[in-house]
Amino acid sequence: MAATVAEAIPPPDVRFRDRIERFGSALPGAGIAAAIVTAPRDLLYLTGSAQPCNLLVVPGAEPLLCARRFGERVREEVPFLEVRDDAGLDALRERLARLGLAKATIGLALDVIPAKIARRTETVLAGAAVSDYSPLLLAQRAVKEQVEIDAIEHAAQLFSAAHETVLEHARPGVREHELSGEIARSLRRAGHEGHVFYRRWDANLQPEGILTSGDNLARISGHSHTITGIGLSRGLPFGASQRELREGDLLVLDVGLNRGGYHADIARTYALGHVDERVAGIADAMVDAFETCRALARPGVRARDLYEAAVGVCAAAGLDSFFQGYGDTRGEYVGHGVGLELDEPPVLARGVESALEAGMTLAIEPKVISPDFGGVDVEDTVVVTPDGGRVLGPVERRLFVI
Amino acid sequence: MAATVAEAIPPPDVRFRDRIERFGSALPGAGIAAAIVTAPRDLLYLTGSAQPCNLLVVPGAEPLLCARRFGERVREEVPFLEVRDDAGLDALRERLARLGLAKATIGLALDVIPAKIARRTETVLAGAAVSDYSPLLLAQRAVKEQVEIDAIEHAAQLFSAAHETVLEHARPGVREHELSGEIARSLRRAGHEGHVFYRRWDANLQPEGILTSGDNLARISGHSHTITGIGLSRGLPFGASQRELREGDLLVLDVGLNRGGYHADIARTYALGHVDERVAGIADAMVDAFETCRALARPGVRARDLYEAAVGVCAAAGLDSFFQGYGDTRGEYVGHGVGLELDEPPVLARGVESALEAGMTLAIEPKVISPDFGGVDVEDTVVVTPDGGRVLGPVERRLFVI
Repeated sequence: MAATVAEAIPPPDVRFRDRIERFGSALPGAGIAAAIVTAPRDLLYLTGSAQPCNLLVVPGAEPLLCARRFGERVREEVPFLEVRDDAGLDALRERLARLGLAKATIGLALDVIPAKIARRTETVLAGAAVSDYSPLLLAQRAVKEQVEIDAIEHAAQLFSAAHETVLEHARPGVREHELSGEIARSLRRAGHEGHVFYRRWDANLQPEGILTSGDNLARISGHSHTITGIGLSRGLPFGASQRELREGDLLVLDVGLNRGGYHADIARTYALGHVDERVAGIADAMVDAFETCRALARPGVRARDLYEAAVGVCAAAGLDSFFQGYGDTRGEYVGHGVGLELDEPPVLARGVESALEAGMTLAIEPKVISPDFGGVDVEDTVVVTPDGGRVLGPVERRLFVI
Repeated sequence: MAATVAEAIPPPDVRFRDRIERFGSALPGAGIAAAIVTAPRDLLYLTGSAQPCNLLVVPGAEPLLCARRFGERVREEVPFLEVRDDAGLDALRERLARLGLAKATIGLALDVIPAKIARRTETVLAGAAVSDYSPLLLAQRAVKEQVEIDAIEHAAQLFSAAHETVLEHARPGVREHELSGEIARSLRRAGHEGHVFYRRWDANLQPEGILTSGDNLARISGHSHTITGIGLSRGLPFGASQRELREGDLLVLDVGLNRGGYHADIARTYALGHVDERVAGIADAMVDAFETCRALARPGVRARDLYEAAVGVCAAAGLDSFFQGYGDTRGEYVGHGVGLELDEPPVLARGVESALEAGMTLAIEPKVISPDFGGVDVEDTVVVTPDGGRVLGPVERRLFVI
C-alpha cells in the first residue's frame, strides 16, 4: 500500500515550468496580460502544490509565487520557484506595476473564486480590468500528459476495492448508508484521498460516491441529470439513504475516485438475487452504448458525436425515452472530462462541436432512468487515442447479479 | 438507526416563513432592497431545501421560489411557498421591476457565489447594484433556534462512533489512512451525511475528519492554523497519511460531524500505550482551558474574552508559546461558530469585540502544537446559555491512553 499510494504524487519530473509557460503564452490571445492563480486545483496543476498561494503568471516573465501562509511548507513543495511569504495582493500589484501592467487586463478564475474575493482583487489592483482565465487553463488541462493519464489510471484502479465490497456486503436487509460505509472504508484503505473535487461551486459528492437502490434510482436531485440517490436528509439529497436493500433490487454505485489529486469516474449496476429479462436487455444496451462511444473516442471526433451515437444505440433498443432520465428531466449528454476535478471539459453533449484530442480523459456514462424499472448505469473512464478510447478502469462492464 | 436518522431532518414545524421574514426585514438596514438567495446552505436554512433554486426575498412581499431544475422535487420539499419552475434570473428581474426595484440594490451571497455568477446576475439585472447579504444572514443564523440546537446535539452524538472506533482499532502498525477508513465506516453507519460543508470556498475536510499522529501533528498545512495532518498526497494535504502508528504515539482525531445538514466539531487526543508526564500535564491544561472557555460562554461575554482566557490558562501552564501553533505560525483564536456550515461566525479570536448570545453554538478548541511533543487538542461543541456553555458532545474530555 505504502509504495502504491506514494506513486500517485506527481513525481519530480513533471515539468511545472513548462505548464506555467504554456498557460502564460496563451493569455494574450484572450486579451489577458497576466493571470493571478489562487484556485487550489489550478495551483496544483501549475506548481504541484495546493497550499494557499497567489501565483502571478506573466508571459515571458519569471513567475512569482506568494505564500499566503506557511511559506516553509510551500518552499518544500515548490523548490523550482522563488517563494515570497511576506506577500498579499499588494506584492502582486507592485510586480505588475514594475512590468508596466498596472492598467492591464488581469485573469482570475472567475468561475471558482467568490465574487467578494474578485471584487477585493479589483480594488487592490485599482485601474486594472479583470477577466476569466479559466477557459484557457481548462482547455490546457483537458489534454493530459502521460504522467496525468497514469495518475488517472491509478485512481481508476481504486474501483476494484469498491466493487469487491459491494459484491461482499450487498445483501437484503442491509441499508444503503451501511453499505456506503463499507465502501468508504475500503476506498480509504486502498488510498482514496477522502474528498472529491468539483469545479462547480455547488456540487458535492461523498468520497464513496452515490450508492442507491430500488425506487431511489429514479428519484433525481436537481443538481445533476444523473442517478443521484436521495441521501440521508434534505441537507445532502444525494447518495445513500436509510433504505433497506431487498431481494430483486437494482443497485447503482457511481464513484468519483480521487488518488493523488487525480480523479476517475466509474459506475456499475448490480442486481440482488435475480434480474428480469427486460433489465438484463437494458444493461446489455448500456454496455453497447458505452462500447460505441468508446470506439468513437478518437482525435478529431466531435463531442456531440458520442452523445448522438449513444442516443442512437438507445433508440435502436427502444430505450430513447429513458436515456439520461425521463419525462422533462432528461440530460442531453453522455459524459465529461475528468482530471484534477471530476467535472472537466469537454462535456460530451448535444450540440458540442469541439473535437476530441489524443490524451483527453473522459468519463463515458450511458444510463437509463425510469420510475418503471429504476435505473441502469455503466460508466468507465477512458483516454482518447487514435484507436479509440482506452479504458482505464479495472472492472468488467456488465450487470452483476449478487 | 432508521428513526434516529430521520429525526435529523428539520421537522415540519420549523417556521421557515418566519426565518425569511426576519431576513427580509433586516435587509433595508444594510441598504439592500431585496435578496436573491442561491447558495444551497442559505436555501436550506430559509426553505428547508438544498435543491438548486433562486429565492427572491423582498421585505413585506411574498417570497418567490424559482426552481432551476426538477421543480417537482422542490415543491415536495417546500410546500409552503409557491414554486415556479419555468424561471431563471429573468423571472426575478420581472418580479423586481413590478415591485419598482429595477434599479435597487440587490443582495447576493458574494462570499460564496463565484464571481462569474455574480457578474451574470448583474448583467441580467441591468441597472441594479449588487451587495453582499451574507453578514446579515450569517448573523441571523449564528443564534440557533431550539430545533437547530437539537440537530447539532444530534450531530455531536455521532462522535461516540468515531471515538469507539479509535479505541478499538488504533494499534501500532496500523496506518493513519487505514484507521481513518474504519472511522469513515462507523460514522456513515451511524448517520453521518458523508460530506462536511464550509462557507469558505477553499476549505475541505474528509467526512471522517483529520486523523493524524506522531511527527505529523506538528506539520501544518496552510489552509488553517490547526492540527491538519499531511494527507495522502499534495492533492489534499490534510488528514490521514500513510504513516504507521507506533507505540508511544500521540494521535489526534478532529471531526466535522454532519447529520441532517447540521454540524458539530469535536476533537480528542489519544496516546498509544503510554504517555509521558509532561504530555499528561499538557492535556490537563487543555482540558482546563476548555473548561474556562466553556464557563465563559454566556450571553454578553465578548468573543475575545474566551480567546484571552485560554491564552491565560496556557501561559499559567508555561505553554503560551505553543498555543494554537508555534513560531510564526500561531493562530490567534480558540474557536468558532458551527451550524449548517462548519465555519460560522462568531470566531472566538483576538480582538473580536462582538458579544455572545444565548443559543449560539460554538466549537471551543484549545490546542498546543510543537515539533517537540507533537500536538494536543481538546475540542467540544457547546451552546451558549446564561449558566455558561452546555456541552453537546457525548465523550469525556481527557487524554485517552489506548
